[in-house]
Amino acid sequence: MRIVVLAGGIGGARFLRGLQQAAPEADVTVIGNTGDDIHLFGLKVCPDLDTVMYTLGGGINEEQGWGRTDESFHVKEELAAYGVGPEWFGLGDRDFATHIVRTQMLAAGYPLSAVTEALCTRWNPGVRLLPMSDDRVETHVAVELDGERKVIHFQEYWVKLRASVAAEAVVPVGAEQAKPAPGVLEAIAAADVILFPPSNPVVSVGTILAVPGIREAIAEAGVPVVGLSPIVGNAPVRGMADKVLAAVGVEASAAAVAEHYGSGLLDGWLVDTVDADAVGAVEAAGIRCRAVPLMMTDTGATAEMARQALALAEEVRA
Amino acid sequence: MRIVVLAGGIGGARFLRGLQQAAPEADVTVIGNTGDDIHLFGLKVCPDLDTVMYTLGGGINEEQGWGRTDESFHVKEELAAYGVGPEWFGLGDRDFATHIVRTQMLAAGYPLSAVTEALCTRWNPGVRLLPMSDDRVETHVAVELDGERKVIHFQEYWVKLRASVAAEAVVPVGAEQAKPAPGVLEAIAAADVILFPPSNPVVSVGTILAVPGIREAIAEAGVPVVGLSPIVGNAPVRGMADKVLAAVGVEASAAAVAEHYGSGLLDGWLVDTVDADAVGAVEAAGIRCRAVPLMMTDTGATAEMARQALALAEEVRA
Repeated sequence: MRIVVLAGGIGGARFLRGLQQAAPEADVTVIGNTGDDIHLFGLKVCPDLDTVMYTLGGGINEEQGWGRTDESFHVKEELAAYGVGPEWFGLGDRDFATHIVRTQMLAAGYPLSAVTEALCTRWNPGVRLLPMSDDRVETHVAVELDGERKVIHFQEYWVKLRASVAAEAVVPVGAEQAKPAPGVLEAIAAADVILFPPSNPVVSVGTILAVPGIREAIAEAGVPVVGLSPIVGNAPVRGMADKVLAAVGVEASAAAVAEHYGSGLLDGWLVDTVDADAVGAVEAAGIRCRAVPLMMTDTGATAEMARQALALAEEVRA
Repeated sequence: MRIVVLAGGIGGARFLRGLQQAAPEADVTVIGNTGDDIHLFGLKVCPDLDTVMYTLGGGINEEQGWGRTDESFHVKEELAAYGVGPEWFGLGDRDFATHIVRTQMLAAGYPLSAVTEALCTRWNPGVRLLPMSDDRVETHVAVELDGERKVIHFQEYWVKLRASVAAEAVVPVGAEQAKPAPGVLEAIAAADVILFPPSNPVVSVGTILAVPGIREAIAEAGVPVVGLSPIVGNAPVRGMADKVLAAVGVEASAAAVAEHYGSGLLDGWLVDTVDADAVGAVEAAGIRCRAVPLMMTDTGATAEMARQALALAEEVRA
């Protein structure tokens, strides 16, 4: 079975680990969000790709869900001593090496997809990890800060400000001109199932879908497309998805997110058991819906979520 | 008193520390060798400039004489895990931060001299540290390896091969086209004394002198130029200067090095007490010479060497 998964960072990575347990024989291609990529200290940092790679490769800091295990922060300490920031982005020493290798390969002319493949030969994530695009896309957020309207990098909004102010608009800068990375459209066309993990629907899955050609390819693939709600009981399971949902005029509810994706794209939708009363609304919108436990408390629980998603896909197919 | 010092790495840096103790009120400008600079992992590394900066700024690993104190090697470990080398060059995590800041500033368009000044605002070395040139100069060494003649970067010769094969030629690639960095010729013209510390006469001081205009400016400055022999008892005090001296046809002896600099450049020369019998030959070559202890065993001993150098300079002047 060929499965394509559109993944952001922590939520996507953890879901993928469950999927690997649920379907160990499946051929999984991950289309990773690169809209939260950022250039820091002259280095190209790809937080979501790295979170997937480290999580599936056994290098992740399990507790925080991002960054490397057994990490130290000497480079960052020294950069701060030089007065070079930003200090709010937590790059560890081991993590720095990944960005140094990536930046060096990009400077040598390799596209991000080739660089990601090279990095993965070390981590053996057990999936094919593709960036959504080799072109630079950077999500920016319009906010009002100290009475002034400003457009800031997504990471500044998310990590520095902890989404503490309202997002007035979320713009994936460069997405319109971006092309899907080599292999992305081919993987979608060859897929038996396409899954949207409980990743952020705006700044993770939404950014991937903003690359021209990807949404269309998914809609036209003619295979079941099943998603899992990142919203449980009207709040994001993790992160601050409600803040960016508001910017696109979508309520933070399991049903509203399904309707935001729409029945043109989505065939099936899993909501948490606490949101069982949303099933009717989602089905009324033309999307088959089931209520199952959606808390990724451990890999076993996550694998069960993946199994439910695959079962719903088969139900849709039949 | 305005003192200009031509410095390489460890020998130059330690001598400077002694000079600061011997002449705490002096205004010292250091013209640093950049011929052993190397690009590693996409980063610009300036070993000699950093050794001077760290040593005078209190950040040096005292035992090894280069690199940072309290150092860790996680970035390097990870680069090796990615299969990215070279592994023979020991960059620590704290040291990496310096190269990251430098590379970022260079990429932003700042010349190396401005970058060095910026880095020094953190370290406060107590001297004005100038790279010999803002232009790229890289010392290469011609060697015979496995029966083949190869030209390798100086660091590969020095650090990887530990100078274990004969150097057939030492070429400061780019030196002929290089211009002295801003401030270099001005500092020389304004100097009261010019000192050559016991640095490598070929790949440290020699490379600085290979930048067109610097040798001439020193010869024409009209002030005492005094050097200290890096060769004691026919062997280098530290390092492998004998290997590269052979490449330029100079005997590894205190007298031969003085004659290599020549009386057109050098007014005074200090040899170690064990080389007292060389004094006659050096003076016969037109260079005033004294035999004094030249082992930099501690800062006190090094300060005494600096005092002797300044005393010889006054003798020459008078």
